[in-house]
Amino acid sequence: MSGDIRSIGIVGAGLVGSGWSIVFARAGLDVTIFDPNEAIRTKVKGHIETGLKDLQAAGLVDDPAAVLDRISVVDQLEAAVSQADYVQESVFERVDVKTEVSLAIDKVMGPKTIVGSSSSGIPASAFTEQCANRARFMVSHPVNPPHLVPVVEIVPAPWTDAGAVAAVDALMTGVGQVPVLVRREIEGFILNRLQGALLNEAWALFEEGYASAADIDKTVSYGLGLRWSFMGPFETIDLNAPGGVKDYAERLGPLYHGIAQSRTAPRPWSADLIADVTAERRAALPAEDLAGRRDWRDAYLTRLAAFRKRQEEGK
Amino acid sequence: MSGDIRSIGIVGAGLVGSGWSIVFARAGLDVTIFDPNEAIRTKVKGHIETGLKDLQAAGLVDDPAAVLDRISVVDQLEAAVSQADYVQESVFERVDVKTEVSLAIDKVMGPKTIVGSSSSGIPASAFTEQCANRARFMVSHPVNPPHLVPVVEIVPAPWTDAGAVAAVDALMTGVGQVPVLVRREIEGFILNRLQGALLNEAWALFEEGYASAADIDKTVSYGLGLRWSFMGPFETIDLNAPGGVKDYAERLGPLYHGIAQSRTAPRPWSADLIADVTAERRAALPAEDLAGRRDWRDAYLTRLAAFRKRQEEGK
Repeated sequence: MSGDIRSIGIVGAGLVGSGWSIVFARAGLDVTIFDPNEAIRTKVKGHIETGLKDLQAAGLVDDPAAVLDRISVVDQLEAAVSQADYVQESVFERVDVKTEVSLAIDKVMGPKTIVGSSSSGIPASAFTEQCANRARFMVSHPVNPPHLVPVVEIVPAPWTDAGAVAAVDALMTGVGQVPVLVRREIEGFILNRLQGALLNEAWALFEEGYASAADIDKTVSYGLGLRWSFMGPFETIDLNAPGGVKDYAERLGPLYHGIAQSRTAPRPWSADLIADVTAERRAALPAEDLAGRRDWRDAYLTRLAAFRKRQEEGK
Repeated sequence: MSGDIRSIGIVGAGLVGSGWSIVFARAGLDVTIFDPNEAIRTKVKGHIETGLKDLQAAGLVDDPAAVLDRISVVDQLEAAVSQADYVQESVFERVDVKTEVSLAIDKVMGPKTIVGSSSSGIPASAFTEQCANRARFMVSHPVNPPHLVPVVEIVPAPWTDAGAVAAVDALMTGVGQVPVLVRREIEGFILNRLQGALLNEAWALFEEGYASAADIDKTVSYGLGLRWSFMGPFETIDLNAPGGVKDYAERLGPLYHGIAQSRTAPRPWSADLIADVTAERRAALPAEDLAGRRDWRDAYLTRLAAFRKRQEEGK
């Protein structure tokens, strides 16, 4: 089934949709982008071109012009969807918007077309139930920007066809992404649940005065995050005790259970707490510098992706 | 005070103690190592030499022989401690062991000597209360191996002198580590609480059948961990919404609070659960390959440290 996927439709041409376009086009697939907003349509190829030049500078794309040539922008949803083997829906994350767009895609999609939603938290069952082709809808959740961070969470709805899931898994692997399968729907999927667990602890430690946001950030960026950038949490602990994960879990499990038991009455992030974190962050990075820092982040991610590629080729 | 720290005593010459020796000696300080175990004493300089050669290969140390020359090994605790300006205690993580060793250090330390414990979870108040010089004891918790992962959690006991904390903070910065201040003692400090929060969620998702350990690992190592390897969790979310952290927290706070509320009855990692994770890990990496994979991890961390250094110098 995956071998048949040659043509990609992108619905929604914001940051996520442009990143997806790069992912598919640099792998040699034809990409057709639709967005209802004319201003976005006008700008999207420029954004993609900038992204491709950054990839070229890092040695991650050889011929940006050839990649760009495989991408076209259309002003009708049907033109992006009807000829597509796979559609990546990347519209605004609100259930009514996702429902409306899914129904529109459903009406014009081909008899074998598969649709993945970039939804970062809303499960496909919440917005595809009424689709005639709902067995070929699922969530394919990327991290932003998808052309620099390769993980994709594939989350089928209860009615999603297993063959369609396997096809998207093969497609994502084929284009160089790293698919993970979330076997059943759950709030936040895997990625945002893991992020949320760490964030909730970070906000609580800040709120209780144990450390500054800057020091909590350093604990991750000069500590935990280094290992986690090439090994997951299970492999990390597996290597961190002489007898492997069993040894580690038996020795440290009680500590971690104690930590969990200290957090059984979670508070929401209050307005005062948000104001305190915001004050520290804005002192470190004024609001007017946020956009520049995002460019720095993406440039860093690009160089990190090139580093990772060298490591994996050197294996 | 920190300017006076020239001479370092290391008590306990396992992996952590050897890593610390590299940290201090490569920064130009004199290091004297004590371990009560003769077999460990005999091997430690060989381990350090291997570590230094790996650093040299990555361009992180210019003259390994000169660094090695600054390190000596002694067979009496007093010989490592009595002339030291700062002592890094890195003995086995058990409160009775730490208490006995702290009292032994206390008896022979100089009138200005400061002692940091490598304890990863036991607070200094649990093992230094009876020390005459307890105002100059604290936790200085590294990540293993300290010469490749720079974060150090400084955790004062209630009786630790603020000047001593400031001196260790300056020392750690001076030798190229990244100190973070944990303002009050708490179980697991910051690093292992953040790791534990993510691990607890990871184990629960595995237990409930949402994903394999391998897929949970990929979600971090090809997703979350990439950004966290150069930005902490607060900076990550600050850059991940148009209006910064306030915007992000207001929009996604309820999702993360919902995730926290779904985990208010934490289960310990049961023997069956540990067996299931172990089975998956041992199928992916047989027990006999654990040691080789640890070497791979350290080699990767070395290259990643060199990459990070290039990025920070390029800023």
